[in-house]
Amino acid sequence: VKKGAAPLGVFDSGVGGLTVVAAIRSAFPGENLLYLGDTARVPYGGRSQETIVRYSREISGALLQREARALVVACNTASALALETLQAEVACPLLGVVSPGAAAAVAATRNGRIGIIGTRATIRSHAYDLAIQAIKPGCAIYSVEAPLLVPLIEEGLIEDPLTDQAIHRYLQPMLEQEIDTLVLACTHYPLLGLAIQRCVGPCVRLVNSADNTAKELARLLPDEPRIPSSSDQGKLKILLTDPPGPFLEIALRELQLSPDSIEIIPADALAG
Amino acid sequence: VKKGAAPLGVFDSGVGGLTVVAAIRSAFPGENLLYLGDTARVPYGGRSQETIVRYSREISGALLQREARALVVACNTASALALETLQAEVACPLLGVVSPGAAAAVAATRNGRIGIIGTRATIRSHAYDLAIQAIKPGCAIYSVEAPLLVPLIEEGLIEDPLTDQAIHRYLQPMLEQEIDTLVLACTHYPLLGLAIQRCVGPCVRLVNSADNTAKELARLLPDEPRIPSSSDQGKLKILLTDPPGPFLEIALRELQLSPDSIEIIPADALAG
Repeated sequence: VKKGAAPLGVFDSGVGGLTVVAAIRSAFPGENLLYLGDTARVPYGGRSQETIVRYSREISGALLQREARALVVACNTASALALETLQAEVACPLLGVVSPGAAAAVAATRNGRIGIIGTRATIRSHAYDLAIQAIKPGCAIYSVEAPLLVPLIEEGLIEDPLTDQAIHRYLQPMLEQEIDTLVLACTHYPLLGLAIQRCVGPCVRLVNSADNTAKELARLLPDEPRIPSSSDQGKLKILLTDPPGPFLEIALRELQLSPDSIEIIPADALAG
Repeated sequence: VKKGAAPLGVFDSGVGGLTVVAAIRSAFPGENLLYLGDTARVPYGGRSQETIVRYSREISGALLQREARALVVACNTASALALETLQAEVACPLLGVVSPGAAAAVAATRNGRIGIIGTRATIRSHAYDLAIQAIKPGCAIYSVEAPLLVPLIEEGLIEDPLTDQAIHRYLQPMLEQEIDTLVLACTHYPLLGLAIQRCVGPCVRLVNSADNTAKELARLLPDEPRIPSSSDQGKLKILLTDPPGPFLEIALRELQLSPDSIEIIPADALAG
């Protein structure tokens, strides 16, 4: 493999992780990016840790087979439940989105009262609570499972009264706790940023993992030229385990991403 | 294998197919039932036909390995998209839920105006339209994709204003078409029967596939004693590809089913 051409591998349960890809693309314009969205098995948020670990391991293997020289787990659920296992098994630089998101929350809060919304598996793992307390002990953390937001987003109901009501129901209890910072602990949620900001009001800061993940990745990568001159640099290749639904186009447009190729590989072909 | 002890195999993408198991249990109290819910890969309703066929084939193979002597595809999405393929590959009696559901709709309608709600994949397959027209040509059929209902049910929001609003949004257009019969073309939806009836009013009859599937199964099975005397008869064994969430308990309680065992087998172990 030509030095510098090996891609940075990024994966998510579906296409929500493209929010992280967009941040990495901005920070590393010359790098080749290889994204895998496990659309044949999305969503991960309600599944068991055992299954989430198995899927994450299969995908990591597939990305490493395709010469990825670093792995970003751009899925909060997989980061919360599988990162530790992957860390023990993978030799290349490996980064999840929980610790960058926690750092963003700590940097944003003024009153130390932080809200977290995420999938059931992410919230029940307490991964964000632990990561935030590790950086700044004594923060008050209010977390809530928001399992309907991913289906609502994937249906394209971004600006919709149904979505507004679901958001209101999830967030009202933590607003009463006077949080000043809300972590969007699922890579889908930034697409609901306007609707969520409308619900929480202007005094609550929304944070997500994407920008901090890109910064953290810069620290992790071995020091080497990032904008090589070869013409096959700066490509984005997307692998999906099932042909994409309408949500892929919505996400690519919102994030201003133009993939150079989109390839379908069955989930069964990832293992082994 | 002892004659008569071989189970009837039933499968669904998740646990919604237990509505069909309950009807089969009533019709065949002495039969052993083996149910497989693919909870590690649920929901199927937004996936491609290729993936739905692959998953259905893996599950059928796993049930046949466990001596199932007949297969019921208790998932509307898999019935609509994979039944034809399975029919060409499986030697035992095989039954889907689309044709029994279509027969129930035709028997119920008085004015020949029939509504259908189902998952995206089921509706786009037009399987119900074709099955209804084959029985009674000239029916007017109005179908709508209702992708949010499964997530709402799995969250336990059975009696909830959010669910009522989603139902109203999906059904209002077909009520204006003066349907007198509505097919619940997803095994989850009977659990929303009360909420849906409230929305459509008393003049629209709700039909689902469960009872007709059990009747059709009686016609398909070779004529043999159904209530053998052996003590290990009449058992219900549940296989899941991921540990169950709270929805399994809700469904078992609502359907008054008591499984004799619940076993977890990883989806990867189904293939081959």
